[in-house]
Amino acid sequence: LAARGKRNGPDRDGTYRRSGVDIDAGHEAVRLMKDAVRSTWGEHVLGQYGGFAGLSRIPGAESSDTVLAVTIDSVGTKVKIGSMCGRFDTVGADLVNHCVNDLLVQRARPLLFADYYASAALNPASVAQAVGGMAEACRKVGCSLVAGETAEMPGVYLDGEIDLAGCMIGTARESVLAAVEPVEPGDVIVGIPSNGLHTNGFSLARHLFFDVAGMTVESSVPELGTTLGEELLRIHREYLTVLGPLIDDPRVHALAHITGGGLIDNLVRVLPGGCRASIDTSAWQPPPVFKLLVKIGDLASTEAYRVLNMGIGLALVCSPSQLESVLSALSELSQRPPVIGAIGAGDPGVDLA
Amino acid sequence: LAARGKRNGPDRDGTYRRSGVDIDAGHEAVRLMKDAVRSTWGEHVLGQYGGFAGLSRIPGAESSDTVLAVTIDSVGTKVKIGSMCGRFDTVGADLVNHCVNDLLVQRARPLLFADYYASAALNPASVAQAVGGMAEACRKVGCSLVAGETAEMPGVYLDGEIDLAGCMIGTARESVLAAVEPVEPGDVIVGIPSNGLHTNGFSLARHLFFDVAGMTVESSVPELGTTLGEELLRIHREYLTVLGPLIDDPRVHALAHITGGGLIDNLVRVLPGGCRASIDTSAWQPPPVFKLLVKIGDLASTEAYRVLNMGIGLALVCSPSQLESVLSALSELSQRPPVIGAIGAGDPGVDLA
Repeated sequence: LAARGKRNGPDRDGTYRRSGVDIDAGHEAVRLMKDAVRSTWGEHVLGQYGGFAGLSRIPGAESSDTVLAVTIDSVGTKVKIGSMCGRFDTVGADLVNHCVNDLLVQRARPLLFADYYASAALNPASVAQAVGGMAEACRKVGCSLVAGETAEMPGVYLDGEIDLAGCMIGTARESVLAAVEPVEPGDVIVGIPSNGLHTNGFSLARHLFFDVAGMTVESSVPELGTTLGEELLRIHREYLTVLGPLIDDPRVHALAHITGGGLIDNLVRVLPGGCRASIDTSAWQPPPVFKLLVKIGDLASTEAYRVLNMGIGLALVCSPSQLESVLSALSELSQRPPVIGAIGAGDPGVDLA
Repeated sequence: LAARGKRNGPDRDGTYRRSGVDIDAGHEAVRLMKDAVRSTWGEHVLGQYGGFAGLSRIPGAESSDTVLAVTIDSVGTKVKIGSMCGRFDTVGADLVNHCVNDLLVQRARPLLFADYYASAALNPASVAQAVGGMAEACRKVGCSLVAGETAEMPGVYLDGEIDLAGCMIGTARESVLAAVEPVEPGDVIVGIPSNGLHTNGFSLARHLFFDVAGMTVESSVPELGTTLGEELLRIHREYLTVLGPLIDDPRVHALAHITGGGLIDNLVRVLPGGCRASIDTSAWQPPPVFKLLVKIGDLASTEAYRVLNMGIGLALVCSPSQLESVLSALSELSQRPPVIGAIGAGDPGVDLA
């Protein structure tokens, strides 16, 4: 089930459970429902359980090269930062951009978006702000917001809190999907920079910044050069604008959106049997917010790189011989993205060095 | 924005606000975001703001007759009945069937489904139960569950509560949509029976049954012939099985799914300028659960018919001369559905008699 495993900031090492998120329970849930979910799949469904988006041919339009890609997401407890700062436009944009990237790594471009907004009591200005943020982000990527639901749920949500979820439908080309060359040992991994936490690790970040360090969203933090609220509300980068020209290129062997689960749990999703990734964590500098979180929480590497994106929002896998031409096709990236690792032989997995 | 106005159990007369849902705030929110939403629409978008589902042509497959229909929904505070009864399979099925009907009234058949499940702490058995219920309902209507998100949201949801939302993507035929004959004065309105509350009016129902009448989900209620929990968890009927053969028929002038807002607010969504509906409430008997709610809450008609479906889950509009042949095309309905009203000349609106 696409995206089903991609929960908000999982981590198997205990710290994250401390902040209220239980990764083992999540994995157990995924196992229990996998068979039921697959039993619904018609012959038109392409792709595998656990992808970043579900893929399907279109009945009645099978003769076209177009297939649909579907993803559904939330922004996790980043919405709480929106509540604390009294603004919901940025989390609305986060939601859209998260979905855009999930489609992108499946080589699909956005077409339609549907949103869900829920709270205990409806504040029209907040709804309009959130939907306004989504609409602006949709316009930027050429996505049409065509359906939405606003639910008032007394007795389900805590007072003053909201939740946002969104489903994006995109189109991909079946001939492109069929032509992609497989990931193989010897490939290199390019890390496309994130601009901060994006939408994952917020239960941990809130715990460390607010409970442990005693900060507030108004705290001006020298290491961050801004207030904590501004830092935490940075909008999740969308990578369609820079990577769009590359998604039809079969020389790009794989793309992984680095969300909940970090590099460790997301990169493994695109590795075929016999391929293992090793990441050289000295190849790039995580932005200050990550260093601060590691310091406050005394986080082990395995923990940090599983709960947080640590500065890499998307990973691209290609052969070393194609690296230069692939990178030269990237538009609008002011800096050359670092090579952060390589693919070796082994069982699928991700090793940190 | 499709479905945006279709919230859980709105009512303009105050009673519903008493139970925590504010319809005026909802309308204000819709007004504020309408322009932003429409600004995202590409040329491929068909249909109008306020439909039951968004409609779009498919870039790359424009030569086919297939268009996409998208709807997103939740089951509202019916999830709380699931929590109270300790089961989530039926509310999972409710969510799917609600979406199926929203597509159906836009003459679309289900293709793909994506679900969102959120709670403060993840209970794997509950997730599996909810998704299992969705999967079973999806299989019945030939819909493939291809994407999902499970979010653990400490600090957003009340302990022990969950929320469910789902997005369904279906296909319709543009030639069929173009051929549909318009609603006109003189048309009759056929009411297809519901089997209970479906998924709307639960904040009001919970208030009246639990707070006012002091019942529990275990209460055995003579008027209902079952426990209150069993009654309230009846699965929202899907109408694709019975009405599917009719949705390509241009003699069916309009179809309205009777959800939040009841007959009054949903029937008006399919009325063109110059057409006003009058409903003869003596034409059918609401099931016992509605009579009981009206009695306990001393609800006025305008209130009951706006918050609750009052026994009509879907309304079908056709010309009187076609009534017999349209009804004879209905399959699997053991009883002939009642004619519950007619279309007259006037401003769009719904009058009760």
